[in-house]
Amino acid sequence: MQLFYQPELINGINTLDSEESRHAIKVLRRKEGDAIDLVDGHGKFYTAEIRKADFRKCEFEIVSTKEEPKRNGFRHLAIAPTKNLDRTEWLVEKAVEMGVDRISFVLCQNSERTVLKTERLVKKAVSAMKQSLKATLPQIDEMMKLKQFISSCETAEKFIAYVDFDNPVHLKDCLKTEQHSIILIGPEGDFDPSELDFALESGFQKVSLGESRLRTETAGLAAVHLLNLFS
Amino acid sequence: MQLFYQPELINGINTLDSEESRHAIKVLRRKEGDAIDLVDGHGKFYTAEIRKADFRKCEFEIVSTKEEPKRNGFRHLAIAPTKNLDRTEWLVEKAVEMGVDRISFVLCQNSERTVLKTERLVKKAVSAMKQSLKATLPQIDEMMKLKQFISSCETAEKFIAYVDFDNPVHLKDCLKTEQHSIILIGPEGDFDPSELDFALESGFQKVSLGESRLRTETAGLAAVHLLNLFS
Repeated sequence: MQLFYQPELINGINTLDSEESRHAIKVLRRKEGDAIDLVDGHGKFYTAEIRKADFRKCEFEIVSTKEEPKRNGFRHLAIAPTKNLDRTEWLVEKAVEMGVDRISFVLCQNSERTVLKTERLVKKAVSAMKQSLKATLPQIDEMMKLKQFISSCETAEKFIAYVDFDNPVHLKDCLKTEQHSIILIGPEGDFDPSELDFALESGFQKVSLGESRLRTETAGLAAVHLLNLFS
Repeated sequence: MQLFYQPELINGINTLDSEESRHAIKVLRRKEGDAIDLVDGHGKFYTAEIRKADFRKCEFEIVSTKEEPKRNGFRHLAIAPTKNLDRTEWLVEKAVEMGVDRISFVLCQNSERTVLKTERLVKKAVSAMKQSLKATLPQIDEMMKLKQFISSCETAEKFIAYVDFDNPVHLKDCLKTEQHSIILIGPEGDFDPSELDFALESGFQKVSLGESRLRTETAGLAAVHLLNLFS
């Protein structure tokens, strides 16, 4: 199934954007009267009929609507973006495939990447949402300073991944079903001890993701997988 | 820590290969008498001393040896390689980081990729092993036909990932600790029903990896993560 994405749908005649119009008409060769499937990124699937098969501005009208089943838990990943941007793009793609509700990017003392444009990441997320037949686009936040992020976290179960061989508690043993969970993953050089202390003082719990030394983006994906399995 | 890889170590003087010699001497600027750390890919870590700092053929002598802690379970992933080879290379890298003992590639009826050179995949595995500070290189098998692979599987707990909404049993609820587990993941077009039947007749159990529609390589990594969490 090929999904199109239109975040703002109105009653009556809607249009696909230029890229999706081109794809529908030139690539998939859809004609007037043909059905197309859409998502709005806010949790709804639509079936629509093409009213005008214009490859620059394809017009369509919605025929039926279906709600995506809701999960009760909330899966929130906060992570320092990697030096190599490809690895962060990959993480966004895979996290959306597995299922995530919000991704926040944090700037840490040891971050090698200090600037992040989220535009390409949102595109990756849209593409992964459509490919994995989901109707909800996760919220993707602009990067903010770690302490600012930590201070902004309100009521939720909050975890910080930090390798501590004296006291390893695995994330899988901390998650509870249907809860709002935030998991925080550090940069390539890990968190500074002062950052860890600040997180712990702010109600974060220190957890492990297992015995293997994982790259930042792999740790992020392992955390998202655990949030899907256990929360 | 920077690890070097030498699969065949002898008593007395050993040499790094040309690429690693160059890296040790030209990039890391190691001198005669300096210590280096090595792994042999068979589960042993070594500390050695450089005897001749030659950037073409760096000579060293082993000073001490340490065994990597052994796991009791065996994590075996069998998967159809993706059409886009980057995605399979990525899977190998991430699976080695998380931990896997053997990766087999299978050719299925719906496989879009019918030829696979494993040389680059082995290089990716070596690099991921060193980066994640492991001493064991997983076995990476050449691609074989699915039915041949299935027939070659002997005593193990065997699972086939297949989305069946009438009877979803999650892999996480089937794995037992310290067992030898094989998990089989199909190509982009999924298994043909005759292939599924053959696997079931051959003692494979049908399992799900969750509600999300995952790409082949994402399913492979989710399976490896579960093998690490539960077997």
